[in-house]
Amino acid sequence: MFLKNAWYVACAAGDIASKPLGRMVCGEQMVLYRGPDGKPAALEDFCPHRGAALSLGFTRPDGNLVCGYHGLVVGTDGKCLSMAGQRVGGISSIRSFPVEERYGFIWVWPGDTAQADAAKLPYLHWGENPEWVYGGGLYHVACDYRLMIDNLMDLTHETYVHAGSIGQAEIEEAPPTTKVEGSEVVTSRFMNNIKPPAFWAATLRGYGVADDLLCDRWQICRFSPPSHIMIDVGVAHAGLGGYDAPPGRKASSIVVNFLTPETETSMWYFWGMARDFKIDDEALTEMIRQGQARIFKEDLDVLEAQQRNLARCPGRRLTNMSIDSGGVRSRALIERLLAEEARPSPVSGPAVGA
Amino acid sequence: MFLKNAWYVACAAGDIASKPLGRMVCGEQMVLYRGPDGKPAALEDFCPHRGAALSLGFTRPDGNLVCGYHGLVVGTDGKCLSMAGQRVGGISSIRSFPVEERYGFIWVWPGDTAQADAAKLPYLHWGENPEWVYGGGLYHVACDYRLMIDNLMDLTHETYVHAGSIGQAEIEEAPPTTKVEGSEVVTSRFMNNIKPPAFWAATLRGYGVADDLLCDRWQICRFSPPSHIMIDVGVAHAGLGGYDAPPGRKASSIVVNFLTPETETSMWYFWGMARDFKIDDEALTEMIRQGQARIFKEDLDVLEAQQRNLARCPGRRLTNMSIDSGGVRSRALIERLLAEEARPSPVSGPAVGA
Amino acid sequence: MFLKNAWYVACAAGDIASKPLGRMVCGEQMVLYRGPDGKPAALEDFCPHRGAALSLGFTRPDGNLVCGYHGLVVGTDGKCLSMAGQRVGGISSIRSFPVEERYGFIWVWPGDTAQADAAKLPYLHWGENPEWVYGGGLYHVACDYRLMIDNLMDLTHETYVHAGSIGQAEIEEAPPTTKVEGSEVVTSRFMNNIKPPAFWAATLRGYGVADDLLCDRWQICRFSPPSHIMIDVGVAHAGLGGYDAPPGRKASSIVVNFLTPETETSMWYFWGMARDFKIDDEALTEMIRQGQARIFKEDLDVLEAQQRNLARCPGRRLTNMSIDSGGVRSRALIERLLAEEARPSPVSGPAVGA
Repeated sequence: MFLKNAWYVACAAGDIASKPLGRMVCGEQMVLYRGPDGKPAALEDFCPHRGAALSLGFTRPDGNLVCGYHGLVVGTDGKCLSMAGQRVGGISSIRSFPVEERYGFIWVWPGDTAQADAAKLPYLHWGENPEWVYGGGLYHVACDYRLMIDNLMDLTHETYVHAGSIGQAEIEEAPPTTKVEGSEVVTSRFMNNIKPPAFWAATLRGYGVADDLLCDRWQICRFSPPSHIMIDVGVAHAGLGGYDAPPGRKASSIVVNFLTPETETSMWYFWGMARDFKIDDEALTEMIRQGQARIFKEDLDVLEAQQRNLARCPGRRLTNMSIDSGGVRSRALIERLLAEEARPSPVSGPAVGA
Repeated sequence: MFLKNAWYVACAAGDIASKPLGRMVCGEQMVLYRGPDGKPAALEDFCPHRGAALSLGFTRPDGNLVCGYHGLVVGTDGKCLSMAGQRVGGISSIRSFPVEERYGFIWVWPGDTAQADAAKLPYLHWGENPEWVYGGGLYHVACDYRLMIDNLMDLTHETYVHAGSIGQAEIEEAPPTTKVEGSEVVTSRFMNNIKPPAFWAATLRGYGVADDLLCDRWQICRFSPPSHIMIDVGVAHAGLGGYDAPPGRKASSIVVNFLTPETETSMWYFWGMARDFKIDDEALTEMIRQGQARIFKEDLDVLEAQQRNLARCPGRRLTNMSIDSGGVRSRALIERLLAEEARPSPVSGPAVGA
Repeated sequence: MFLKNAWYVACAAGDIASKPLGRMVCGEQMVLYRGPDGKPAALEDFCPHRGAALSLGFTRPDGNLVCGYHGLVVGTDGKCLSMAGQRVGGISSIRSFPVEERYGFIWVWPGDTAQADAAKLPYLHWGENPEWVYGGGLYHVACDYRLMIDNLMDLTHETYVHAGSIGQAEIEEAPPTTKVEGSEVVTSRFMNNIKPPAFWAATLRGYGVADDLLCDRWQICRFSPPSHIMIDVGVAHAGLGGYDAPPGRKASSIVVNFLTPETETSMWYFWGMARDFKIDDEALTEMIRQGQARIFKEDLDVLEAQQRNLARCPGRRLTNMSIDSGGVRSRALIERLLAEEARPSPVSGPAVGA
């Protein structure tokens, strides 16, 4: 139940710096690598000679991928280029996947190549702005990626799952509002006049901002298909306009979440944080990254146990409450797009007359 | 192939002292915890909100269980009590299992609640008698629990599996007798004028009883449905009446075995020993517990390999010999009760006339 | 897809020196042990009493195998001999497999016993010659054994998989020739006037032969059914006749490969090297063995990933190129023998007249 005609993050740009990477995306086993001119490429991870995993091979100085078993050389279009001492004319091509590099990530399109278009990549204002910096990581999670959508589109869970860090009772007391804006689902929550929780207090101190004043806190979760969720989060000294408070009185950032299905019941979770302050402070980037890694890890046990429960009880009805509406609407959007994807393409041609 | 309308040991009383416990019993995934007034409770381990595992949650000071994902609060009857900021009237209840605490264990009834009755709990004379003490442990075993019944109802295996501790050639030379007494199967073996084996020699010494005399040894295995086996075991200086020999000339105890099916091919094995001597000697309790843990562990490899063999050869005929009759009759008793369980309950109502 | 009417290596002779060994060969779970007079025996690893694994038992001083669960004693013909206190007349026999000890290995015949014949064991000239010595090891590999046949009958892969040791570009530049000689497939490759690769340079030095001269190198791979591959390998100072060069100017040996299918998708890989120089130098034997272990381990990742790829894409067509003809012809030979094996045995009898 995932869209195939969409761009997904396959890996971070640095993950293929020195050698090819094998990774399954939406059920497609791919090898990702840097081809000629260092441009990223994605092929089926299946050598057309004997079925070896191309990801165990290497790239030649000219950027072409060499199978590590018997040396078949393949181009980024999936065509066999050569093999020592062999005629390769009769060798079938393997599938090549559209691929783009942007925002520090390698994006692949696991579906119909004809529909792939770089213009359909999400626009992330922080991703190409030199005044922002990003730090993040990757978790493999044994759950349907939609359970992670539910998780991220309803931050009520922070009160429970992350009680020791970013959670606080006030979150669940502030009713969220959810609206659909074009192809985006937005769930917002505003908590005013609260004590900043541990993570934010530390972050305020990291910015040199007083952490002992009451704050206004915001969480604005933005889902866009197929499964990217950007969350504007922050705290500002109370009464100064929250998100719009002046610099020096607030701490804010964007929690970045790219969810990439691996199979129907497992996923790659690219998580991170983008910020526009102290962007040269690498120690801060690392401190935030480690804090996030620890907090986001708390979700994994919960989600994997939930996945096992749902697998054991197929068809069992769950409850959608008001706090779930972010997830519900995001799933509805995916369902609608899946139905579109399943619909046969219109055939243009002469009308059949009488 | 296990009875569902029966009491099974789910855990030791202390296992839920500080937090909930998730455990599958007879195919039912349960969360066990202490509810209001510290009384044990057992529910489906499935939050009716989104299917999270309730066993990852916690209990409030009032004893109600809180889901660790979004904070749904559930009562011991499986009804949702509250959830911050949400109306919970429409939320389905989850299944609640009858539960009792007795003899230091938490017992659950995985079948039809209407038939559960605390009066059907087994009566264990040592379990509530202050002159007895118990020590034991738990093993997870990847086998059909009936293989463990066979194992415990035919102690011939001690000669082989436990050759280095409680086994001795005399065991297999003493023919066992098996009889069915009401709903109990009893297999007895008496070995007279033998040298006490290592474990019993040590235990005699532990009691301050001479270990260098010939002894009479007894093993009386009592199976009762669904799958509890109590074994009276001991040695006495020879010719003094065996089991009835006077104190100071014997060592005896009860080997306690509660077999709780997890799935058709795996089980929880609660093992231990109850004794009525030196009951305040905690070091002795621990020494016995460690000895038993080591000996009972020797069975696991054997049983798990047997399970794999039987799974590989379904339908293959095994041999029932005279030594097997304890297991054979115990299984027959289970079969008869399973047939009763499968029979539709009699419907009382007016006869349909003409 | 393996022949069952054939001799396979089940284990090294020393593997059953002190206790029985359980091993699956061609889908048959066997127990291997030394029976009366120390002769090897192979039975189903299934006690006819209750299905316990006989491989967890032991042999009595008289060489008969005793089940480690309840002490059933079984003969090498699979018949139950005795059991303490029990009548064993009604106990079914278990299957006994033909077994032979030769060349330091225990060989079993997993198929039709009537067709087993020690005369069908492969003849290995080095195996019984006191002027040769052998050293080797065993790997369990999660792949169809035929992928290993392909691997060994096409040493082109050395250039890639073993680039750091025995591989060199010249291998793939020398076209191999493949021919079928009786029931043997032979693929040969000769590389003249080349620099000896790392492994061979070290081996030359080990022999006290100059390693800084150009060499002629040979690889002659001999496949014989069901799945044994002997490879004559060596280097000699160039121009002296290669394989026929005089002692002191060359280094050569036989790479020994016995491939024993475990299941359709896993195998036991017995690998080693036989040589006829410095045969008393145990340190050299061990050095070679460790070098080979390291090199052959490099193949495992490649083969297991290939197996996963093929399992994921059943029916997908691979490419057979000229370098593959050793594997292709070996597989064709197996296919032909499998067809023969499947054919019903001819029934000889009087012709049916009119």
